[in-house]
Amino acid sequence: MTTLDETHDPHRRSWVESANAPDTDFPIQNLPIGVFSLDGRSPRCGIAIGDAVLDIGIAHDKGWFTGDAAIAAESAITASLNDLFSLGCSPLRELRRQAASILAHDGPLAKSTRAAREGLLHARDACAMQLPVRVGNYTDFYAGIYHAKAAGALLTPEDPLPKNYKWVPIAYHGRASSVRVGGGTIKHPHGQRPPEDDGRPGFGPSRRLDFELEMGFFIGKGNALGQPIDIAGAGEHIVGFTLLNDWSARDIQRWEMFPLGPFLSKNFSTSISPWIVTADALLPFRTPAMARDAVDPAPLDYLLDADDQRRGGIDVALSVQLQTALMRGKGMPAVEILHSNARHLYWTPAQMVAHHTCGGCDLQPGDLIGTGTISGPEPDQLSSMLELTAAGARPITLPSGERRGFLEDGDEVVFTGKCHRDGFVSIGFGELRGRITA
Amino acid sequence: MTTLDETHDPHRRSWVESANAPDTDFPIQNLPIGVFSLDGRSPRCGIAIGDAVLDIGIAHDKGWFTGDAAIAAESAITASLNDLFSLGCSPLRELRRQAASILAHDGPLAKSTRAAREGLLHARDACAMQLPVRVGNYTDFYAGIYHAKAAGALLTPEDPLPKNYKWVPIAYHGRASSVRVGGGTIKHPHGQRPPEDDGRPGFGPSRRLDFELEMGFFIGKGNALGQPIDIAGAGEHIVGFTLLNDWSARDIQRWEMFPLGPFLSKNFSTSISPWIVTADALLPFRTPAMARDAVDPAPLDYLLDADDQRRGGIDVALSVQLQTALMRGKGMPAVEILHSNARHLYWTPAQMVAHHTCGGCDLQPGDLIGTGTISGPEPDQLSSMLELTAAGARPITLPSGERRGFLEDGDEVVFTGKCHRDGFVSIGFGELRGRITA
Repeated sequence: MTTLDETHDPHRRSWVESANAPDTDFPIQNLPIGVFSLDGRSPRCGIAIGDAVLDIGIAHDKGWFTGDAAIAAESAITASLNDLFSLGCSPLRELRRQAASILAHDGPLAKSTRAAREGLLHARDACAMQLPVRVGNYTDFYAGIYHAKAAGALLTPEDPLPKNYKWVPIAYHGRASSVRVGGGTIKHPHGQRPPEDDGRPGFGPSRRLDFELEMGFFIGKGNALGQPIDIAGAGEHIVGFTLLNDWSARDIQRWEMFPLGPFLSKNFSTSISPWIVTADALLPFRTPAMARDAVDPAPLDYLLDADDQRRGGIDVALSVQLQTALMRGKGMPAVEILHSNARHLYWTPAQMVAHHTCGGCDLQPGDLIGTGTISGPEPDQLSSMLELTAAGARPITLPSGERRGFLEDGDEVVFTGKCHRDGFVSIGFGELRGRITA
Repeated sequence: MTTLDETHDPHRRSWVESANAPDTDFPIQNLPIGVFSLDGRSPRCGIAIGDAVLDIGIAHDKGWFTGDAAIAAESAITASLNDLFSLGCSPLRELRRQAASILAHDGPLAKSTRAAREGLLHARDACAMQLPVRVGNYTDFYAGIYHAKAAGALLTPEDPLPKNYKWVPIAYHGRASSVRVGGGTIKHPHGQRPPEDDGRPGFGPSRRLDFELEMGFFIGKGNALGQPIDIAGAGEHIVGFTLLNDWSARDIQRWEMFPLGPFLSKNFSTSISPWIVTADALLPFRTPAMARDAVDPAPLDYLLDADDQRRGGIDVALSVQLQTALMRGKGMPAVEILHSNARHLYWTPAQMVAHHTCGGCDLQPGDLIGTGTISGPEPDQLSSMLELTAAGARPITLPSGERRGFLEDGDEVVFTGKCHRDGFVSIGFGELRGRITA
């Protein structure tokens, strides 16, 4: 893992005034990357700064990127970030470093970049965000131990955690084609529901539609089939992070998942937040890997690296808000129904990469990896409706007086994520929104 | 499903003499499609005919394809079949029809095509076969009911079949990136093995390396997210079939798969045979869907179509041969260790497509779908080493005197598939080979 540099300097300010607001997700210390379209033109890559988007192509045309950053910018003049990611972390690091310099209040280019503001920056509100990456493969881990315990307790309360849990970073392959950028609607899925009294499964809309609060991360440089990635270098294969909603239909899932795991209950849609926060921007917010209980096993050798143990975790405060159609109609804002933190992951992202490849599986640039649902130890940190309402048995009550065991048509779910650390400027992930439609 | 036409005429012969041999897999009634490279030049698309390969690009350059076939040929002048498949079944159907005309002994173009033989045809042995499709998504079903029973019996002999089995076409998402064309080597995977006496899982080479005999099929036209494909039209979304080896590491699988299904135990490699036999070539060999026992439930409405019930199954005789390094050294040929038939699938390919999309999941051109392991009801029809040797408890003995519970380094596994029906010329799938290396 690399070290802090001037891009993390808390005193640095931008000539884009909105980036200096204390509550912005996108100060000059963040500079996440995404793909936007504007005025019906082809999608292209940009960097979020305050309430604006820096157009990478325009800045590149002006000749403001040099060396590795110019190579990175050149590869980003497309409708997806795959080419950029395939270059690995280093050119992206340099692109962010030089973008910060372009946008800095006192940067060497401040005068000319500020003068070019008109074409260089777009209003973020006016940009239609696109799926930033062609996702070749999508894997979802199960690294949230409090989620695994809470989900397991609903089935086998006396022994909630699978026997393999503390040894194996459990994961399954998700459906790459149905990954979408947030902000749109989620069509209420139909499927087979577990048999009721007549012994026959029902077929129709899921009655237990749910979200799962996760983070996702993207692979930069991949590995060849048969060539595992060592845990010590695994972090350098991760270019950035997003919020991820692993929408789930619990009734369909319960009926279909034995013995080969979830399938239709997950593949109707997976959403990610549009702005990819780079691994570099997250550097100040790395934390030690989750502490093990004394009775817990140490990770096996291929999952154990001193640097990863010391700072392989990530400290991201996560929040889920819900707004029903009735609330929207009455002008009531979305209300927070739970909060959590990415610190509650039993395995670090680097451990997930090392495990994923230890048998020879090849990761490719732009592959998306989900962490699994990140619940925390407290009752208001349970990160799905399944857990939060004990599978619908204890519905939550909303400010509108409505009760929810699971999601209903018209409900909008909003994820946010924010990193705080004393002595550093807070950075955020923006919003990940999704609204259920019939 | 379309009907038989002149391409299925058993009396038709080709001016390519090797295509008229009674035992060829590739008579003029077959004409499977694949991607080959030759003499170090870029991969391109071809059609297998006897011992030769018809170069689609050359035939197209000569102007021998017209109408839809010309559109199909134009889209096949690339290193993958994705563009061709995205056009749907109809242009491919016309391409095969006109290719048959070009290659027919008494076709209208026989004189000029035969004269152009030199550049038009390549020796099949000289062609290096490539992965024919960029596989965007790979799904593996579990539709072999005798496999599900045999595998289940090893765990729960009193109740081998999962309760959902006869209602839900069970499937899981596989890893698209590790799908490879057959003919190469498979690197022996490492991974976590179940704990032994000391309670700790081991880590190292799998001790229970296995194959799984499956068929695969490719999606042509896809569907939009949220728009299910109706069972009645599902067959038209399937362009062709291959043999598929779902290599599996049973010890890794047993330890990792609860509760989310197989992951590293499968994603180190999946192999497909290089020639894709078109759905049209298989028309004479369609059979009724597998008959249900009287006590079995009828398929739910979304899986039920009269035409699919009448001829949605496929009759492909399948065989697995094994050759160890010792056998190879002694000049002993590979020996058949089991045989089966694709008739033993509980769900038809159309039912798999309808189920896959019933919740809204979008299929895309070039998506690969595996059927699951196709065991038959007899002891010599168990289509993996796991089943064949009762998880290693009853090893098989080979002509070399060697015994095998599971696969060992140097072992080569060969799948073949052949379709026979009275009154029709038999067609085959060629070989799917893979050799284990340390």
